[in-house]
Amino acid sequence: MKLINIRKQFPILNQEIYGHPLVYLDNAASTQKPLQVIESLQQYYEQDNANVHRGVHTLSSRATDAYEGARKKVANFLNAKTEKEVTFTRGTTSSINLVASSYARAVCNEGDEIVISAMEHHSNLLPWQQVAKATKAKLKYIPLQNDGTFSIGDVEKTITDHTKIVAISHVSNVLGIANPVKQIAAIAHKHGAIIIVDGAQSVPHMKVDVQDLNCDFYAFSGHKMCGPTGIGVLYGKKQLLEQMEPIEFGGEMINHVDLYDASWKELPWKFEGGTPIIAGAIGLGTAIDFLKAIGLDTIEKHDKQLTSYAVERMKQIEDVRMYGPDDGRFGLVTFNLGKVHPHDLATVLDTYGIAIRAGHHCCQPLMLHFEASATARASFYLYNTEEDVDRFILALEKTKEFFKK
Amino acid sequence: MKLINIRKQFPILNQEIYGHPLVYLDNAASTQKPLQVIESLQQYYEQDNANVHRGVHTLSSRATDAYEGARKKVANFLNAKTEKEVTFTRGTTSSINLVASSYARAVCNEGDEIVISAMEHHSNLLPWQQVAKATKAKLKYIPLQNDGTFSIGDVEKTITDHTKIVAISHVSNVLGIANPVKQIAAIAHKHGAIIIVDGAQSVPHMKVDVQDLNCDFYAFSGHKMCGPTGIGVLYGKKQLLEQMEPIEFGGEMINHVDLYDASWKELPWKFEGGTPIIAGAIGLGTAIDFLKAIGLDTIEKHDKQLTSYAVERMKQIEDVRMYGPDDGRFGLVTFNLGKVHPHDLATVLDTYGIAIRAGHHCCQPLMLHFEASATARASFYLYNTEEDVDRFILALEKTKEFFKK
Repeated sequence: MKLINIRKQFPILNQEIYGHPLVYLDNAASTQKPLQVIESLQQYYEQDNANVHRGVHTLSSRATDAYEGARKKVANFLNAKTEKEVTFTRGTTSSINLVASSYARAVCNEGDEIVISAMEHHSNLLPWQQVAKATKAKLKYIPLQNDGTFSIGDVEKTITDHTKIVAISHVSNVLGIANPVKQIAAIAHKHGAIIIVDGAQSVPHMKVDVQDLNCDFYAFSGHKMCGPTGIGVLYGKKQLLEQMEPIEFGGEMINHVDLYDASWKELPWKFEGGTPIIAGAIGLGTAIDFLKAIGLDTIEKHDKQLTSYAVERMKQIEDVRMYGPDDGRFGLVTFNLGKVHPHDLATVLDTYGIAIRAGHHCCQPLMLHFEASATARASFYLYNTEEDVDRFILALEKTKEFFKK
Repeated sequence: MKLINIRKQFPILNQEIYGHPLVYLDNAASTQKPLQVIESLQQYYEQDNANVHRGVHTLSSRATDAYEGARKKVANFLNAKTEKEVTFTRGTTSSINLVASSYARAVCNEGDEIVISAMEHHSNLLPWQQVAKATKAKLKYIPLQNDGTFSIGDVEKTITDHTKIVAISHVSNVLGIANPVKQIAAIAHKHGAIIIVDGAQSVPHMKVDVQDLNCDFYAFSGHKMCGPTGIGVLYGKKQLLEQMEPIEFGGEMINHVDLYDASWKELPWKFEGGTPIIAGAIGLGTAIDFLKAIGLDTIEKHDKQLTSYAVERMKQIEDVRMYGPDDGRFGLVTFNLGKVHPHDLATVLDTYGIAIRAGHHCCQPLMLHFEASATARASFYLYNTEEDVDRFILALEKTKEFFKK
């Protein structure tokens, strides 16, 4: 499959906003869905819908096969050793909270350290603040450099033999650059710590191999990679997941229940109490088929080139300040335009059909680092084109004129 | 809208299984979805999809309006005082676990009591076992009578001034009968306890008014009432929700975040960390529109009459043992056929196109009460007909003959 005709697969892009063609540049918040994902949900509900696992009738068998088939697709996509290492969750936030509430609270004690960075999204920051408070472990930050990144030297200085957990984003949702998680994992392991990687912004844009990275946990969301809302994944190494207690208790995750005690099912169902997110998982599986058919290498190259093109064009607009390093952006650029409040900027751009995001991007500590209360963010995905960027730049220039008046 | 032509709205029902028309009688596990629910998901993804709350562009505003509009529909449906009392969750299991992990662990101490019954689904039993273990509160069971029900006299004897929490299903997923939760709520409140109601099997079949019941929390799932999988609701009284701490931490639920501390948003967003289950909530809102257009009274009457008809026909088959009281069944009947294992029974019925459930129905303690390791269960919903029941009875008789051989 080529990217050249890919926009036809996304019905939502074919609409006008205030008389202008929609230019959707809010992909880091949520991506659009191709027809085959939408149709896979429709097909599930029109042909196969039933509750899974416990049923012996035909629809239930079909639904179970489709749901567990999606798990195998995810395992294969990440190069996990086994699909038992794949837990379906509500999204990245739930995945990270599961590790924090179960694994971290069990292993952390007073004097232990949890290492994160100040560029983390709130979903990879708040759970660790809570674990630190509950266990009296110390929350330590890898210091940021002026451009918002951190150096591997500072990682080495921050992680010590007291460190139990390192929690780092693979790609920052503000800077757009990738952190060297393979190196960080090696450093963490040298000190006996485990590493959890927030992959919300990486999985959509690059080939991720959890065995090659040697990360212990890896979390991501379906809706940022052409999948449905309300579905996500926690990858975890089998021996770690096996030692963890579930945090939600209900049907489908038990082995035996009596009045005062119960025992749990084996992986992966131990962590999936209640009726699972059946259609969501199936839709995510279809999204993976779609991305793989294009090729993650193709997508990475396209997203990076388009972002570089946008950055080059934006450099030519006076008063545009961009945040983060110039190179290696995986599909997003965060910026401000003079003293225009980013919400006003986004509102005016919307009248030209351009959808961008404005705010703190769930990254208040990083905003503080940049001494910005908020920024604008344009983020690109496989269906965006140079024409989209050109329209964005033109609208940005018009907006600049508008606020000069 | 009349029920007479309702089957046309459910494309999945128009198929054959092993050459027989599908007779779907597994509704207590999951119901089918009408076209308008499937189309509302499609419409969302093809026209309006974007992340909610944080965006100022048109798609994000539309998605936010649709998502928060769904919350208002739920509040109205339950007669909640305000939509702030409605939290979207992954399903009933997540809703109950939220109350157990946040409210119950905070208020229960050694010597306190949590009162439940042995007819509870595992999702309304395991969370309380865990709270009891963690807080040293005592888990107390309202004793069951021979037919699996409990008396209001025994409720009065079991709840004491030491009781902090009463957790009861509104309709049992094995007996099919409704518990007098309004009376139980009054008894709980007299002793200063709160009540949480598991509404997974009631909300699909009857008009539920949380103010009239005066329950403190009420939990249910979308997929059992014509809505999508992976979406559920926790209703809670505002003053209780306000005193509760969130259990998942991430984006969208914060007010302010610094490096070592954070504060939470107001209700209902405090409990919805991360990108919400946007399409799921919208689909649930559409399911509510659908059910209300038919009328919950009409649905209740239909489901009860059809179940009575099935029970009367089943009584005429020798060797059929039914569990629970004869009257007041809300759409389901649990049974065994002689010594035939219910899994074998369900497997043979499937070859006649009849989809029923077999197993412990996530109710191992109640199965123990009946001295049955497993049972079969036929469950009915608004699209089932007397013809469905007749086909089921015929297949049951044939199956009986088959196992006689």
